[in-house]
Amino acid sequence: MPFVNIKITKDGATAEQKAALIKGATDLLVKVLNKNPATTVVVIDEIDTDNWGIGGETVSNRRK
Amino acid sequence: MPFVNIKITKDGATAEQKAALIKGATDLLVKVLNKNPATTVVVIDEIDTDNWGIGGETVSNRRK
Amino acid sequence: MPFVNIKITKDGATAEQKAALIKGATDLLVKVLNKNPATTVVVIDEIDTDNWGIGGETVSNRRK
Amino acid sequence: MPFVNIKITKDGATAEQKAALIKGATDLLVKVLNKNPATTVVVIDEIDTDNWGIGGETVSNRRK
Amino acid sequence: MPFVNIKITKDGATAEQKAALIKGATDLLVKVLNKNPATTVVVIDEIDTDNWGIGGETVSNRRK
Amino acid sequence: MPFVNIKITKDGATAEQKAALIKGATDLLVKVLNKNPATTVVVIDEIDTDNWGIGGETVSNRRK
Repeated sequence: MPFVNIKITKDGATAEQKAALIKGATDLLVKVLNKNPATTVVVIDEIDTDNWGIGGETVSNRRK
Repeated sequence: MPFVNIKITKDGATAEQKAALIKGATDLLVKVLNKNPATTVVVIDEIDTDNWGIGGETVSNRRK
Repeated sequence: MPFVNIKITKDGATAEQKAALIKGATDLLVKVLNKNPATTVVVIDEIDTDNWGIGGETVSNRRK
Repeated sequence: MPFVNIKITKDGATAEQKAALIKGATDLLVKVLNKNPATTVVVIDEIDTDNWGIGGETVSNRRK
Repeated sequence: MPFVNIKITKDGATAEQKAALIKGATDLLVKVLNKNPATTVVVIDEIDTDNWGIGGETVSNRRK
Repeated sequence: MPFVNIKITKDGATAEQKAALIKGATDLLVKVLNKNPATTVVVIDEIDTDNWGIGGETVSNRRK
């Protein structure tokens, strides 16, 4: 029944990489807390680099 | 003043269906807790099926 | 498979009221989008009135 | 180390405006709580007006 | 109508500091995007240091 | 720079188990997407079973 939300910058993660995140996060909840994988939900948000800030700057500007 | 976030897979929900979710969620808060609808906010996130996982798999793969 | 998060101020909602929110939100997703209730998750966050602001003020201060 | 999520309707906020939100939110955490800006993360979600509701109606319908 | 969620570690922020975060975040949305403060909502989550991780470690362990 | 939020029911997860979730989620982002662990943040929310619903019922009621 756990719910996991993963937020990353939109940088071309492939369907395979996103599937690996979902598999890995689900396995982690099973291994550490013995949660039921059948009702474990993982949602990935891919965020535009203009919309993500760290250190007071957007990622877009940090990469310039 | 409540805030409701509804996450669903991106599967072609129409503007009318999304309006119905917003109306229904707001009415629910009014009915159950007597909240003020004028300041009740509902935000719907539609998530790509590659980015939603359940049972350790993406919804895209489960539908194949 | 939908995920619903309801945030309300901590004002003594009873277990019955919270159960009614969960039932109502789940039914709404079933009725409007034909979602499967068995995998519909609803999480309620009850927020201290010092930690909730509207109009630039905490709810605690607005109620004084 | 704080994490700030700002949700706004998708109404053409420019990259400069989003950078100003990120700078302002980071500065706020530094000023009020002396947090380290280097690990302060801000994520902005821009939400379609069909997907944002207030007063039981979508913003799209309220603007008609 | 914006919604802002601020997550910080639970470290004894006072009611005054939390009120300052709420006032500051609301003013920021007004200044940068001309949003209506009356419907701007800010919610602060204070997270136990056992439940917050950075660099792969809990904040509790990093402080030891 | 990723941000991960893990929501679980409040069922007595120990500090060690929560540290293992944080370590595991961080390692996952490093392994799959080569993210920098130093700025990867993980926040765990433990939710009262009265406040978590699945299948239209609270977890508290399902366990009775």
